[in-house]
Formats: sequence, C-alpha cells, structure tokens
Amino acid sequence: MNVTIIGIGLIGGSIALHLKASGKAKKITGVDRNENHLKEALQLGIIDESAPLENALEKTDLVIIAIPVNAARELTPKILDQIGENTVVMDMGSTKAGICAQIQNHPKRKNFVATHPIAGTENTGPKAAFNGLFTNKVSIICDRDKSAEQAIRVVEDLYNSIPMRLIYMDAEEHDMHIAYVSHLSHISSFTLGLTVLDMEKNEKNIFNMAGSGFASTVRLAKSSPDMWAPIFEQNTSNVSTALGIYIEKLKLFKQYIDQKNIEKIRELMIEANQIRRILDGIELAVKA
Amino acid sequence: MNVTIIGIGLIGGSIALHLKASGKAKKITGVDRNENHLKEALQLGIIDESAPLENALEKTDLVIIAIPVNAARELTPKILDQIGENTVVMDMGSTKAGICAQIQNHPKRKNFVATHPIAGTENTGPKAAFNGLFTNKVSIICDRDKSAEQAIRVVEDLYNSIPMRLIYMDAEEHDMHIAYVSHLSHISSFTLGLTVLDMEKNEKNIFNMAGSGFASTVRLAKSSPDMWAPIFEQNTSNVSTALGIYIEKLKLFKQYIDQKNIEKIRELMIEANQIRRILDGIELAVKA
Repeated sequence: MNVTIIGIGLIGGSIALHLKASGKAKKITGVDRNENHLKEALQLGIIDESAPLENALEKTDLVIIAIPVNAARELTPKILDQIGENTVVMDMGSTKAGICAQIQNHPKRKNFVATHPIAGTENTGPKAAFNGLFTNKVSIICDRDKSAEQAIRVVEDLYNSIPMRLIYMDAEEHDMHIAYVSHLSHISSFTLGLTVLDMEKNEKNIFNMAGSGFASTVRLAKSSPDMWAPIFEQNTSNVSTALGIYIEKLKLFKQYIDQKNIEKIRELMIEANQIRRILDGIELAVKA
Repeated sequence: MNVTIIGIGLIGGSIALHLKASGKAKKITGVDRNENHLKEALQLGIIDESAPLENALEKTDLVIIAIPVNAARELTPKILDQIGENTVVMDMGSTKAGICAQIQNHPKRKNFVATHPIAGTENTGPKAAFNGLFTNKVSIICDRDKSAEQAIRVVEDLYNSIPMRLIYMDAEEHDMHIAYVSHLSHISSFTLGLTVLDMEKNEKNIFNMAGSGFASTVRLAKSSPDMWAPIFEQNTSNVSTALGIYIEKLKLFKQYIDQKNIEKIRELMIEANQIRRILDGIELAVKA
C-alpha cells in the first residue's frame, strides 16, 4: 500500500522503517514542516519521497499522523476533508480525548482510528528513529466502535505485524490513566532536573556525585518540550489532578522527615516497593 | 591483608568480591546480624568465614562498614574502641556528617576514613552483590585531613585498584549536595510509585499502559526501606530543604498547567533539558 506519514520524527520515522523493512508499504511519502527533517529522512532512506500535504493525501491508502498532539488535533479534520473514500487515517499521539472530540461529527469519522503506541525515547527527529522501537510494546486503540471495521483491520494488521500487543479503551479513560503512568513521571523528572540544576550551580558537583539512580530518574527531563507542552495542554485536567496528588504525597513525606518519624517513612517506602511486582511484569513483557 | 566486612549485602558483598578477585585480601571475615545473609555469602564464596564482631576485629588490617547509616554511626565508636593500633576502619554509607561527628573526639579518629562510593542498584542482600558494581564510578572521601596518612593510603589504594575516581569533600558539604543528586531522586521515585499504586487500583492498567519512561523514573521505588529510612533520618535537614524546593517547583508547574500557560511550561522544560549535558557526561564517565 501507499502510506503517507505526517511528521517524520522519532515516532513517524520508526513506523516508516518498520513499514519498509516488512514490505508492507510500497511507497512512503513524508510530510513535515521541518525541511531539514525531510532531507534527513530521505538521506536515511526512511521515506521514499517528500511532498506537500495536499499532494501527499492523493492516492494514499494510509495516512499516519505523528506530530505533536495539538497540531494533530487541528490537522485531522482537514485531512479527513481531503482523503478518498477508502483511505484510512490513524494518529499516534499520547492524548486521545481531544482529537476524538474534534472529529466526532466529521462525515469521515469512520475512516479514522485513534491509537497510542506506548513507546518512545527521550530523543527526537528522524535520526532518533529506529526499526524496533515498537517491537513487543503495547499499543492502545481508542473508541474502536467509532471506526469502520475496514479501518480497524488496516491498523490492527500494521501493529500486529511489528508485533505489538493491542489493547482497547475509551478515549477519556485512556487520558485519565495515562496521566498517572506517563505524563506524571515526565513532570516529576523535568522538575527534578530543574531543582538540581537550580541548586547545584556548580555543575561539577552534579557530574561527580550523581550516580545511575539519579540518571535513571531524571532521564525523561531530556524529553522534547515541543512534544510535551501540547500533551500537557491537551490533558490539563487529568494531569493537574495527578500532579496534585503527587504533591500531597510529597508533602506527607516531607512532614514525616521534618518530624524524624522514621517508622512512617519506612511504611511509605514499603508500600512503594509494591511497584516492584509491576515493574518486573513490564520487563518480562518487554523481553518477551 | 586480612579484611573484616561488617554488613554483607549489595555494597559489602560487592567490595568483598573485588577484594578476592584482585587478590588484595588474604582472608575476608564477614559479620552480619542476618544469619541467612552470612550463610549465603559463604555459599557464594563472597567471604571466607563468618565471625561475631568481637572476634572479627582481632588481627584484622582493614574493617569495612557497609550497614545502614544509623547502625554505622552507632557502631563505629565501638569498633574504634576495639581495634589494634594499625587497623584501618572505613565506612561506605550515603551520609557522612553524622558518623564523622560521632567519632570526632575518639582517640582512634585517625584510623577511620569516611567514604561514599557512588554506586548501587535497587537490589539488596549478598545475592545482589557483584564484582564490577564500583568499576569506573566515583568514590568520595570526606574530611581527609582527619584521617592518618597511612589510613588514607590503604583506602585510596583499595578504590584505585577497582578503579574508582576519587574526589575529596568536607562531610557537611557532601551531605548537602548528595541530598539533591541522590536522596531527592529516591523520594521523587518512591512517591511516584505510591501515587500510581494509589490511583491505579487495577494494576492491569499500570502494567498495560506504563512504558520504559515510567519504569526508569520509578525504578528507585524498589529500593530498600531498611537502607533508606536511616539515610533520610541522618540527613533530615538537607533532605527537607531539597524536598521543599522540589515541591515548590512542582506547584509552579501545576499552576502553569491549571492556567494552560503552555509557553511557561515550555520554558520550564527547555531549562530542564540542560540536564542532558550533565547526563551525557555521566554516561561517558561510566563507559570510560
């Protein structure tokens, strides 16, 4: 099939590499506002050609939207306006309720499939793309019943060929849960980075004294502001609630520290240790 | 030389494995309140023999203290009371001011060297120990001028043989900086684990929706409460200050989210991205 990918960064580039390697795409057309990214993607063999959006939507079988979530929300109705009767459109963004609301009454709503592959790194651009980013990860398909069966089949077939494990969810429910298991950890990491940079003006101390634990906790602070600012904007209410609860728990931790109430601190940590069971599960799933 | 290691867990066990592999120790005697750990350490060949503390301090050249920091603080003066004139005692704990204060007027203060190797994993016990844990990491030696030259030489020689990169610091200064680059990231991670476990009563959601980013940020929530409760107790004031600043910054982040002030959020993230430079340095140093 002919595939058009809008946004040739880490996500769009990595799905393109899979489509090429697996032979699923006959031709991949890339669309990107960033001319350098288009050039790089052509040089790296990630796409076969670049084109302006209008041209790229002609005679394409599948349109994959892999741009920041606010831009995706704006652009999706316009894409649906222009595509052919049987063209399937999917997005790959980290928030789902906004984009689904935006097109709920669009006459081509059924051509669209809302997806969120749970995969990524803290790096960006076509150079960060690699075939294998999605392998054995989970992809979430939202509001399945609002898409045509044929559209669902195209998307499921693509993700299954990687393979990814598919789960199905309501868009609102997705955004609520993802605020806790993804968006919150990004904020905790960004803010940890800010705090340490602020307090340790002498970076040599950070460099000398930080170990792998710090590096692991603060890794997400390297993430792209261009990608994440729109995610927080699209998921304001859920992220605010999650962050509020996180702050309350940190205050409790601080209160126990100020009181030197070591038994209570120990209890909190023993409770937090329960996450081990879940993390072991995630690691097993990733290795499987 | 004959070496006595008090506390045969991840840290004590890993230094024992280096001492054996490098041939630096003729005999390693293990002391531990946990009988199972002693048995495991003997079975795994980490130590040559186990002994009660009193016996283990006779005719030993080097005593390595690798137990939780509150117990180390209590025990160190008693160890200094019992050792021979030329025995060197070192600790490996994550807080340094308390232990140094405890022994400041001890007649054998000069036999003691306060150290903090910046290395660890979230696992505990002798089974978690491995030769290589410390390789190419940093070790901090505190209040160097309060130790005898001969004692410093023994400890430097040990760490250099791994090799580790040595840096020198005042004990109070150490505790202040380490609150930011290590203790704070543990609290941020423990609390992230607590928040997600609390809100996601259905663990299947965490398991399905959490990706490598969450796993990385929450990894330290698996850390040992027995090790960490005493660290927070020993470093109360610095940890409380660091945590207070972290909470203030999270509140600011939340305020911008509630206001949908995306430009301000973007600015915070761009600032946090500066951590990339430092993390790249840490990775290079670890790989070197």
